[in-house]
Amino acid sequence: MFEASTKIRVRYAETDQMDVVYHGNYAQYFEAARAEAIRDLGYTYKDMEAMGVIMPIVELHVKYIRPAHYDDLLTIKTILKELPTDHRIEFHQEVYNEKEKLLTVGRVVLYFMNAETMEKTVMPSALLEKIESYFK
Amino acid sequence: MFEASTKIRVRYAETDQMDVVYHGNYAQYFEAARAEAIRDLGYTYKDMEAMGVIMPIVELHVKYIRPAHYDDLLTIKTILKELPTDHRIEFHQEVYNEKEKLLTVGRVVLYFMNAETMEKTVMPSALLEKIESYFK
Amino acid sequence: MFEASTKIRVRYAETDQMDVVYHGNYAQYFEAARAEAIRDLGYTYKDMEAMGVIMPIVELHVKYIRPAHYDDLLTIKTILKELPTDHRIEFHQEVYNEKEKLLTVGRVVLYFMNAETMEKTVMPSALLEKIESYFK
Amino acid sequence: MFEASTKIRVRYAETDQMDVVYHGNYAQYFEAARAEAIRDLGYTYKDMEAMGVIMPIVELHVKYIRPAHYDDLLTIKTILKELPTDHRIEFHQEVYNEKEKLLTVGRVVLYFMNAETMEKTVMPSALLEKIESYFK
Repeated sequence: MFEASTKIRVRYAETDQMDVVYHGNYAQYFEAARAEAIRDLGYTYKDMEAMGVIMPIVELHVKYIRPAHYDDLLTIKTILKELPTDHRIEFHQEVYNEKEKLLTVGRVVLYFMNAETMEKTVMPSALLEKIESYFK
Repeated sequence: MFEASTKIRVRYAETDQMDVVYHGNYAQYFEAARAEAIRDLGYTYKDMEAMGVIMPIVELHVKYIRPAHYDDLLTIKTILKELPTDHRIEFHQEVYNEKEKLLTVGRVVLYFMNAETMEKTVMPSALLEKIESYFK
Repeated sequence: MFEASTKIRVRYAETDQMDVVYHGNYAQYFEAARAEAIRDLGYTYKDMEAMGVIMPIVELHVKYIRPAHYDDLLTIKTILKELPTDHRIEFHQEVYNEKEKLLTVGRVVLYFMNAETMEKTVMPSALLEKIESYFK
Repeated sequence: MFEASTKIRVRYAETDQMDVVYHGNYAQYFEAARAEAIRDLGYTYKDMEAMGVIMPIVELHVKYIRPAHYDDLLTIKTILKELPTDHRIEFHQEVYNEKEKLLTVGRVVLYFMNAETMEKTVMPSALLEKIESYFK
């Protein structure tokens, strides 16, 4: 299992008139946390795109347990439970507030795609090598 | 069954560098479409909030089938398959492009909550009366 | 002078915890209104990009007079006071609510750029021909 | 003069199909940077709102010099050139990329308002005391 953790401070722009973070904005928090998780491995999603591999999202599932508020310093966990064996990768994501209360749980499915041909591909070997050690 | 349909034009702001609508922005499209669905019934979500009933989102599920592009005139369908009997309401949502291709499928679960006490409540009777006729 | 007008309904996502439209979101309203203004001329910004001309924003100026609220049906005016003679074009924009109160005033400067070479260019002649009639 | 500096990593969601940060999103970067500038003083904007003072934006001016790109680690500077003497406060803001190139320049005017009465007020004395030392 591979797990990474990132901190994100809630912006005023991200709240709505219910005085909480707008539910649609968690997709951005998850995305930023996945990018940091990959960076932790010594790789970047940006590099992957530059090499011609893009990762479109194919499924997003979010359960909202408790609200996040303006200026909260959130901890976003990104968990990879299984090493991808084909074009599909699934991340679990959890959002905690400063009191370590679980606010939101997410599951995001992405595909590895060749940006040129738009055909399914697999995780670049340079990234796979870095991540494999976590699954031994 | 109650079904409503709304059109939304994709803004430049809503695209990302993959040249498609950013996946997190569909939450906004769904929200705007639900608001129009309620308006079709001669009621507004704004009125409901003014009366002290808010509807926080508790679950969001999205499947991305085909991408939406800048300036696409999308059709967002909002479908209520079952009349709510308690504090929970579940909407099905579908996004189509101008060629009537299905782009995205969503399922959104919301609760009726008393804004004052933050306790679970039920659909306001004024709205329930309007919507019941679709389920006879 | 060329003037066009578009209607935009405020989304819940666009409000913040001050119970008003977040100030940064007016950039999107202005953008959507400019796109509709060009469409009124029988042309689209999308077509322009497809032809290799992009229009990056170089200046944005906004004055906030009164707040916009959730579910307001805003009227966004886009005004071109002068016909562009080089790579620069300047739009004036005004936002009104349903009571015809002026909420926001904007001024946006854009450049015509060749997307390939990233050099300054001029308004495509097909669009210029359509717009010239308003300045006679 | 009071000056503070914050780092913000560009999210994928913040890019558009021109492969740059959407111009409207700088308002959020400026907002987040102002919040960190106030936090540097040992105070928070959140505390101020809790005490009944809100700071609506009344003017936003942005000049876009060079684009920001996905995954750029931006430095946002927040500069207060003059100590506010009434309800009005004006911040200067600058965005730099990792190569220390100046990307964007902003000027934001806000008012101190009593959230209860919605009348103009002045900077809370607790914050004023902290900030005054920078102007001696």
